[in-house]
Amino acid sequence: MKVGIIGATGYGGVELLRLLHGHPGVEQISLFTSSEEGVNYSAKYAHLKGLYDVPLHSIDLDVLAELDIVFASTPAGVTSTLFPSLLGKKPKLIDLSGDFRLKNPDDYSHWYKKQPATEEMLEASVYGLSEWNRSAISESQLIANPGCYPTAVLLSLLPLIKSGLIDGDYLVIDAKSGVSGAGNSLSRITHFAETNENLSIYKLHEHQHIPEIEQAICQFAKASSPITFTTHLVPMTRGIMATSYAPVTADMQETDLFDCLETAYESSPFVRIIRDAAVIGTNQVYGSNYCDIHVKVDKRTNRATIVSVIDNLVKGAAGQAIQNMNIQCGFKETAGLTGIPLFI
Amino acid sequence: MKVGIIGATGYGGVELLRLLHGHPGVEQISLFTSSEEGVNYSAKYAHLKGLYDVPLHSIDLDVLAELDIVFASTPAGVTSTLFPSLLGKKPKLIDLSGDFRLKNPDDYSHWYKKQPATEEMLEASVYGLSEWNRSAISESQLIANPGCYPTAVLLSLLPLIKSGLIDGDYLVIDAKSGVSGAGNSLSRITHFAETNENLSIYKLHEHQHIPEIEQAICQFAKASSPITFTTHLVPMTRGIMATSYAPVTADMQETDLFDCLETAYESSPFVRIIRDAAVIGTNQVYGSNYCDIHVKVDKRTNRATIVSVIDNLVKGAAGQAIQNMNIQCGFKETAGLTGIPLFI
Amino acid sequence: MKVGIIGATGYGGVELLRLLHGHPGVEQISLFTSSEEGVNYSAKYAHLKGLYDVPLHSIDLDVLAELDIVFASTPAGVTSTLFPSLLGKKPKLIDLSGDFRLKNPDDYSHWYKKQPATEEMLEASVYGLSEWNRSAISESQLIANPGCYPTAVLLSLLPLIKSGLIDGDYLVIDAKSGVSGAGNSLSRITHFAETNENLSIYKLHEHQHIPEIEQAICQFAKASSPITFTTHLVPMTRGIMATSYAPVTADMQETDLFDCLETAYESSPFVRIIRDAAVIGTNQVYGSNYCDIHVKVDKRTNRATIVSVIDNLVKGAAGQAIQNMNIQCGFKETAGLTGIPLFI
Amino acid sequence: MKVGIIGATGYGGVELLRLLHGHPGVEQISLFTSSEEGVNYSAKYAHLKGLYDVPLHSIDLDVLAELDIVFASTPAGVTSTLFPSLLGKKPKLIDLSGDFRLKNPDDYSHWYKKQPATEEMLEASVYGLSEWNRSAISESQLIANPGCYPTAVLLSLLPLIKSGLIDGDYLVIDAKSGVSGAGNSLSRITHFAETNENLSIYKLHEHQHIPEIEQAICQFAKASSPITFTTHLVPMTRGIMATSYAPVTADMQETDLFDCLETAYESSPFVRIIRDAAVIGTNQVYGSNYCDIHVKVDKRTNRATIVSVIDNLVKGAAGQAIQNMNIQCGFKETAGLTGIPLFI
Repeated sequence: MKVGIIGATGYGGVELLRLLHGHPGVEQISLFTSSEEGVNYSAKYAHLKGLYDVPLHSIDLDVLAELDIVFASTPAGVTSTLFPSLLGKKPKLIDLSGDFRLKNPDDYSHWYKKQPATEEMLEASVYGLSEWNRSAISESQLIANPGCYPTAVLLSLLPLIKSGLIDGDYLVIDAKSGVSGAGNSLSRITHFAETNENLSIYKLHEHQHIPEIEQAICQFAKASSPITFTTHLVPMTRGIMATSYAPVTADMQETDLFDCLETAYESSPFVRIIRDAAVIGTNQVYGSNYCDIHVKVDKRTNRATIVSVIDNLVKGAAGQAIQNMNIQCGFKETAGLTGIPLFI
Repeated sequence: MKVGIIGATGYGGVELLRLLHGHPGVEQISLFTSSEEGVNYSAKYAHLKGLYDVPLHSIDLDVLAELDIVFASTPAGVTSTLFPSLLGKKPKLIDLSGDFRLKNPDDYSHWYKKQPATEEMLEASVYGLSEWNRSAISESQLIANPGCYPTAVLLSLLPLIKSGLIDGDYLVIDAKSGVSGAGNSLSRITHFAETNENLSIYKLHEHQHIPEIEQAICQFAKASSPITFTTHLVPMTRGIMATSYAPVTADMQETDLFDCLETAYESSPFVRIIRDAAVIGTNQVYGSNYCDIHVKVDKRTNRATIVSVIDNLVKGAAGQAIQNMNIQCGFKETAGLTGIPLFI
Repeated sequence: MKVGIIGATGYGGVELLRLLHGHPGVEQISLFTSSEEGVNYSAKYAHLKGLYDVPLHSIDLDVLAELDIVFASTPAGVTSTLFPSLLGKKPKLIDLSGDFRLKNPDDYSHWYKKQPATEEMLEASVYGLSEWNRSAISESQLIANPGCYPTAVLLSLLPLIKSGLIDGDYLVIDAKSGVSGAGNSLSRITHFAETNENLSIYKLHEHQHIPEIEQAICQFAKASSPITFTTHLVPMTRGIMATSYAPVTADMQETDLFDCLETAYESSPFVRIIRDAAVIGTNQVYGSNYCDIHVKVDKRTNRATIVSVIDNLVKGAAGQAIQNMNIQCGFKETAGLTGIPLFI
Repeated sequence: MKVGIIGATGYGGVELLRLLHGHPGVEQISLFTSSEEGVNYSAKYAHLKGLYDVPLHSIDLDVLAELDIVFASTPAGVTSTLFPSLLGKKPKLIDLSGDFRLKNPDDYSHWYKKQPATEEMLEASVYGLSEWNRSAISESQLIANPGCYPTAVLLSLLPLIKSGLIDGDYLVIDAKSGVSGAGNSLSRITHFAETNENLSIYKLHEHQHIPEIEQAICQFAKASSPITFTTHLVPMTRGIMATSYAPVTADMQETDLFDCLETAYESSPFVRIIRDAAVIGTNQVYGSNYCDIHVKVDKRTNRATIVSVIDNLVKGAAGQAIQNMNIQCGFKETAGLTGIPLFI
């Protein structure tokens, strides 16, 4: 397979390369950029010296059209104008930006403050939450790869809402992310001296992942109430934890919830249900494509607390994108993604 | 004033000393320990060399009885047996442990798994949430200094519940703490290689601060429903953030909530209402006795998100204890606590 | 005393304010900026809300001339043009930049790549290494406050070189700093995701503190060989450690070196000789004006390793500046600087 | 290949498993422990759930004797008594402890304070510095895998000393390590609240890696002077940087040193000479088997500063052990070690 990465200079691109490098079905990786054409990739990212001492290419649609797979890890608003001309052509398209995730163009305009993709493109795209949409993914050319927060939230909540074990009408989701989620652009909130030893909250009720989560809950679990969703910045590089709260349906026990989760993911190699862990943490999945899920029912309140952790750059971005590539292309779903978490 | 610190070898004791060192009304500080009698304090804590090259004393009730103030920063179960003999004697008593916080002995037995204090002691003690209990604190010999999490939670929620602006019957509280809250005892969850770059959740629905928060909400704001409360461990040393979620009463606007908070704390020098901050974080209060509070109403869900941050070792422990000493002893409430947060 | 801070928007200015806030002899602090005139200081630095809700002033020489003390925490090249018109006027001048440190203008041009101050200004200025230059500092209007690295290096090496116990002609100095030393300007090396979990080396043999160290060794200890000096960036916010290596003069023992250091600083409250510490670390001085020094002689090589730690923002910048103000103005040397290190 | 890991419960064992898991020539991995027999490995290390839900075995020499390769990641003093009975049997033996590194038993007794291995075992063992001893490694049953610090130091210094470009008689080596190097045993120096935001120095002139470095310099580069060597603890999990200082031989230029290094490692895939980097850091090799080396000559002093970085758990332990296995067993030297550094 000949693979291209658009937006190779960002952290999403770097992580795609790290994972694709070890993929048994990938024979060639080309790197594209809109801003640093001609720059040697290992001059920009010195950790790749000796591995990718290759120039970055400008984005050329004719070149892209000859590839087997094109990943785009670009800011909002890029692929909505770039991908239409590749639709119906040879390459499978996997978009890590938010351009094709929201089916309602008005939602996109409202939350992203940008021009939405065309209705035709939105219809052609499939939401790439791998574990919940394998069939559609396998048949589609264009995958809208989920956001990092939605991945952690949806994998843990969808089975429980769909089965009616928890009440999807009163969801409170408290999400926390490491700083790499903010990307490689310099900013005040990524300035070490002000980020280190600091836990902060940001984009309160305004995060663009809110409509994405609500849309997917509606699509896959048939609940349609607005959610409460907040995002926190944690002084670490990688990792997302989503702590979600919901009322439990009458008479449901913790064991029912665990059974539901285990059944839902019995054929999903990257989702692990942690039944007995006293502690669940982001380092259990560091560097890997796993999503670990834990749940606890509080009989005093008859509410459940559902916890899930992922590596935001892997399962929350590049890893799931490759998982989707595997599904699209007929590789084994775990191909290139068998690395053990680093933990320490 | 002659001051004593029982439990000087723990982090609470170290922080009490740091703050009392600069208190204008303190003339002498004696240090007591149950386990390291005779050890030179600066041999144990080298950062105090040249400042406190003094031996630790064993706990002697006759010596304690001659002091003006006795702080205890001890594990659960110590002061319930130690303080009865000092009741009615000279020293004001400020207990940083949980022994006198819960008025119902059965609650203590249930949540702390230890023998509770006597009814007489529990009746004699006053809950030291400074901003909400000044009058009782000023008249009491024995103060039960609040827990770190309850301080952050209660300061932010009490005005809003009491005034009926939010619904105290459906509270979800997602709390996060730096690792110093786990004290100086060695443990797996404080082992650097497994704590660094790791966000974890612990004591799900089982934290002993749950009944303390519920009791105080009942006492000060007249709501009595059980709460949902979780605690997370963040890879940083100091700081607590409590993110709380509650339904907003019909027709209430964000500005009503801010007005309520500002009115509640207009005479409280350590509580700051952050009305316009895009970002609120623990480094805004690092090393200081401040509690910063922010609130945001989501009109889509008609729920409020309330955020508060404190330094767990200061406002969440030693700082509030000294604030209570100031109230008890007639000092200015800010005496010894005027340090500016470090921020960087 | 009426005090002014030029360059209040930088970290040096923030730290000056934190320390001056608690200084018993300071009655008024005015804040000046070249770039953010009119901005409310607590809008820029939210941790100061309720404390310094005051506008930043533009730099006005007439206003500055009425103050008692003017601190400048500005980039290189600012005070060399700003301070000449204040020379001979009322305010004491303390410059935290490098503009007046190097007595040879050619050295300044070479290492700073900027226009040097005039000979007149350089003659008028006194190097503010407090412990080594008290008499001159007390008589001078204009103090060149030392750099952070030179402070850590010189305090530990000067007594040993001056007394001939170590050989000043073969000095290797390996220095390490927390990231706050890079200031509040955004840059790649302060970007959290690339700085966290990364130890790096920078400005190899090219750091502008090299000629400053050499000049001071020549001035105070009469040695004149070039030094080897490297600087590393450590993933923490505050703290500098300098590990220095030098041959020991024949027959000298470790105890001789300790005696020399203790004698040199017996009247210096901020320098602590750590004779028996198994471990010496930056957290022993965190947030304080202390410099801790340890030394060990290796009989196998007949070389000494000398270790010193400071808080780069305090003893390495704002703290020493205030110490110099105290010496200039006749305050007690420790005034405003009695805070205990945070340690945890 | 059937592989065994003795000491699977330590961090070295965990990292061996992570890397062996992806090795194309490994078909079975058995885990052995002296202390936690029967414990399920994924119960101890939850990040391995679903991957290694297998019991730990007690150490049984008959079982070990049937394996193809046995790695030991054990404390000092274990393999010296365990490996003699396996010598001459089937399995290749790779010892990650220090038991067989020092050829002089008296050195071992002196620096390790333990009983040394027998002369016969010491003669049978080969020092596993892969790049410098390939031939002997390929022919030996028993490999003494190098220590983490010696690996970083030796790879950078040996070519320069051997070729006479720097003077091996005046070496000063300032080494710094992340905290994972201290292993998974709880201790004060690994307690998060006292390690985070702290840079410390330890084992001054007393580190057991000193004789190992000196012995290897003598063996491979024919210099025999004692070295100055210090070790620092950096608040991060992984990574070692060694900054070494040495006089440059007359007339030698920086480019000569770079040429020497590049020539020395032109056939070594894991050593990268970084000629033009403004910054070299541990995150460039994070999680990988690379050693990056940079050098700079200071014409003012005629001394060179040589910098090298490795991941202490990979090239400094498990990675080099697998590299040695590859050499011993005839695999491609990079087998199982092709992972790209994580960088972020």
